[in-house]
Amino acid sequence: MVKKPLIVLNFKTYAESMGEKAVIMARYCEEVSQESGIEIIACPQTPDIFRVAGAVKIPVFAQHIDSTGAGGFTGHINADCVRFAGAVGTLINHSERRILLSEIDSAIQSARKAGLRTIVCTNNIAVTSAAAALSPDFVAIEPPELIGSGIPVSKANPDIVSGSVNAVKRINPKVKVLCGAGISTGDDVAAAVELGTDGVLLASGVIKAKDPKAALFDLVKKI
Amino acid sequence: MVKKPLIVLNFKTYAESMGEKAVIMARYCEEVSQESGIEIIACPQTPDIFRVAGAVKIPVFAQHIDSTGAGGFTGHINADCVRFAGAVGTLINHSERRILLSEIDSAIQSARKAGLRTIVCTNNIAVTSAAAALSPDFVAIEPPELIGSGIPVSKANPDIVSGSVNAVKRINPKVKVLCGAGISTGDDVAAAVELGTDGVLLASGVIKAKDPKAALFDLVKKI
Amino acid sequence: MVKKPLIVLNFKTYAESMGEKAVIMARYCEEVSQESGIEIIACPQTPDIFRVAGAVKIPVFAQHIDSTGAGGFTGHINADCVRFAGAVGTLINHSERRILLSEIDSAIQSARKAGLRTIVCTNNIAVTSAAAALSPDFVAIEPPELIGSGIPVSKANPDIVSGSVNAVKRINPKVKVLCGAGISTGDDVAAAVELGTDGVLLASGVIKAKDPKAALFDLVKKI
Amino acid sequence: MVKKPLIVLNFKTYAESMGEKAVIMARYCEEVSQESGIEIIACPQTPDIFRVAGAVKIPVFAQHIDSTGAGGFTGHINADCVRFAGAVGTLINHSERRILLSEIDSAIQSARKAGLRTIVCTNNIAVTSAAAALSPDFVAIEPPELIGSGIPVSKANPDIVSGSVNAVKRINPKVKVLCGAGISTGDDVAAAVELGTDGVLLASGVIKAKDPKAALFDLVKKI
Repeated sequence: MVKKPLIVLNFKTYAESMGEKAVIMARYCEEVSQESGIEIIACPQTPDIFRVAGAVKIPVFAQHIDSTGAGGFTGHINADCVRFAGAVGTLINHSERRILLSEIDSAIQSARKAGLRTIVCTNNIAVTSAAAALSPDFVAIEPPELIGSGIPVSKANPDIVSGSVNAVKRINPKVKVLCGAGISTGDDVAAAVELGTDGVLLASGVIKAKDPKAALFDLVKKI
Repeated sequence: MVKKPLIVLNFKTYAESMGEKAVIMARYCEEVSQESGIEIIACPQTPDIFRVAGAVKIPVFAQHIDSTGAGGFTGHINADCVRFAGAVGTLINHSERRILLSEIDSAIQSARKAGLRTIVCTNNIAVTSAAAALSPDFVAIEPPELIGSGIPVSKANPDIVSGSVNAVKRINPKVKVLCGAGISTGDDVAAAVELGTDGVLLASGVIKAKDPKAALFDLVKKI
Repeated sequence: MVKKPLIVLNFKTYAESMGEKAVIMARYCEEVSQESGIEIIACPQTPDIFRVAGAVKIPVFAQHIDSTGAGGFTGHINADCVRFAGAVGTLINHSERRILLSEIDSAIQSARKAGLRTIVCTNNIAVTSAAAALSPDFVAIEPPELIGSGIPVSKANPDIVSGSVNAVKRINPKVKVLCGAGISTGDDVAAAVELGTDGVLLASGVIKAKDPKAALFDLVKKI
Repeated sequence: MVKKPLIVLNFKTYAESMGEKAVIMARYCEEVSQESGIEIIACPQTPDIFRVAGAVKIPVFAQHIDSTGAGGFTGHINADCVRFAGAVGTLINHSERRILLSEIDSAIQSARKAGLRTIVCTNNIAVTSAAAALSPDFVAIEPPELIGSGIPVSKANPDIVSGSVNAVKRINPKVKVLCGAGISTGDDVAAAVELGTDGVLLASGVIKAKDPKAALFDLVKKI
């Protein structure tokens, strides 16, 4: 049997997944993860990491870290601080929070030193290749035009997904590949797995669903 | 008698004021505030706001918020989320986290809607005037070359402080003025008050002191 | 009779006003300016400043300068260099090229030292006030949602224009006020003048017109 | 005999290589290039491209282009406009003008469509690998701490140069490798070639020399 895919749920700054609601959303993730045996990672906003990580046993990731270290960096998101708050990984370079190429490299280094796993988000095959050359744990290919569209990248542009998988294999086969943008159903997850990815990154498909827990159960039903 | 000045302690991303150490530092602030009757505000890193605000009764401010609202803004610092975590105010546009002019304006609006007080940091008299025109609760004039220098702005450049006080009075007298950069002793605080400010913004003078609690007590001794 | 308004034509990076076409567009501006006695300023792209300034006698402005000086600033737009190429002024902080508050201040200083006049673009009354506090020669209020819309700000939101005029009078009466966004006809210019401005900033209304020269003549017909 | 190395001279925003002085500096490059048979590329500031390209026959490159196309992009550096002004290539992502990873990719595409050759600057081996994956014509490895230091990277850190050469060979052997930072003599150029590069990128070593023409002749003396 194939390896079970990973599901990464980005809470963004949605009102539905903020503050105490972030804890509730993370508990849904935990429940579905425990029942299905599928790893689900919750990515709440930075101010919510501490309370979410204290409330659930599933992995909690930050949505962003800065590449700067400890010191005179007011307002930056420090990797160690995120780790101390309970996160065990982080998104880097999400399309809504792009950073410089050299910053992606140093953010990966900072995360690694702090014991955080890294998911670098990318927008096309060339950029996925570049990101893979920096040796994060994961790259997540997300065509920006499909984010929040409800049209799964696995259907709208399967070539960008399989092309990313192939490019990463060639550049750095240790890096795992997620795909995102438009994912909302178990069919979308199954399609992503068939295209060779190790899982999916999604947000509104669950967070904005009428019944987020049901949406999470639907995601894992075909695995 | 003159009104008691405000002391704002910026924890930056210093290792000495991060994670559980942020809670300890905030407790020092609380103790000195209670004994002296001086308001001391603690500004920990975003991931530390929840645990610090849950541990102390003094006001907790964020070091930065983004101007974006709830929605698809992965990795941004949302004003409501910061408020839900327990902060009651925020620094904006610190010299280590400058933002666009239009973003300062919308961050002030977002903060106000979320019930957060605002301190906009500035670097000279002209920029202080501009910031005052945006009607934050406070402006904090901090010549960047003096930040972390140990040379208090009140001695190195008293004209920039009194000039800022006068400019703000002319543009928007409801805005209060803090001064920062190089502040570390009670004499520095007294000098800042004499120059017409409502208080000080400082960081390394306390955080990096051998005995931060003693440094805090020294700050308030002349008030 | 009232003072004649100023017309500032932003060439943006439109294909219709780039390279040799920038020279042609600037010649239209020159012809209309000479016939009407109205000052028209041409703002071509940076690489086109030299050839445009060499070809026409109307004032040429840059679209942006950086706040950095001479030195190790690869890829920055230096005020002196722009001046040597023939520009006599510059836009600063256009909505398509926003810069930090502190950079606006230092860009104005750099421009002044280089002998360039300055137009700082703003997006609402509060930001206009802030910009006026920095003492540029002009502020240009342009609600971003109306830029390129064909709906003139003077009709869609006259209050933002008159409010900006009043705010600038209060903060710094030496600063002149332009308005932009959606301007394309002589009626729009007349309305802008009636609201108290010193002129208009426009782009697509002329550049994208079928007959740009006719569009320019239309702009000045009511003055 | 080995292939002759390429010399790329970055004029930065130095006062010594601005305006009419940019033309003089480019003529030195042209003279030395013609006498030595070594290709020397001049990279003046954007406002100087037109007059420099009109005055010399050596290739002229821009110091930066933006990734945006023709349209509503006030203040951006458009690839076509740079080409129309006479440039035949461009630096991208110089350490003094870093851009986002996704912007590097789209700037390379924009440059290619406009007929411009591309040199992407990088700061370490990992970032060089990432840049090579984007298929520019050249990468230029420049450790930022050595830029302007007078200490040639080929001596201070030969491993970063040979490591970059090897990484690029593995990722994308069509991409050529330059090295920069601290280069000022013919020995430095010879060392760079021995480490496997295709040439050098330099600035202050020539521009700030008492006799720039002599400095250029020195650079090519060992080739």
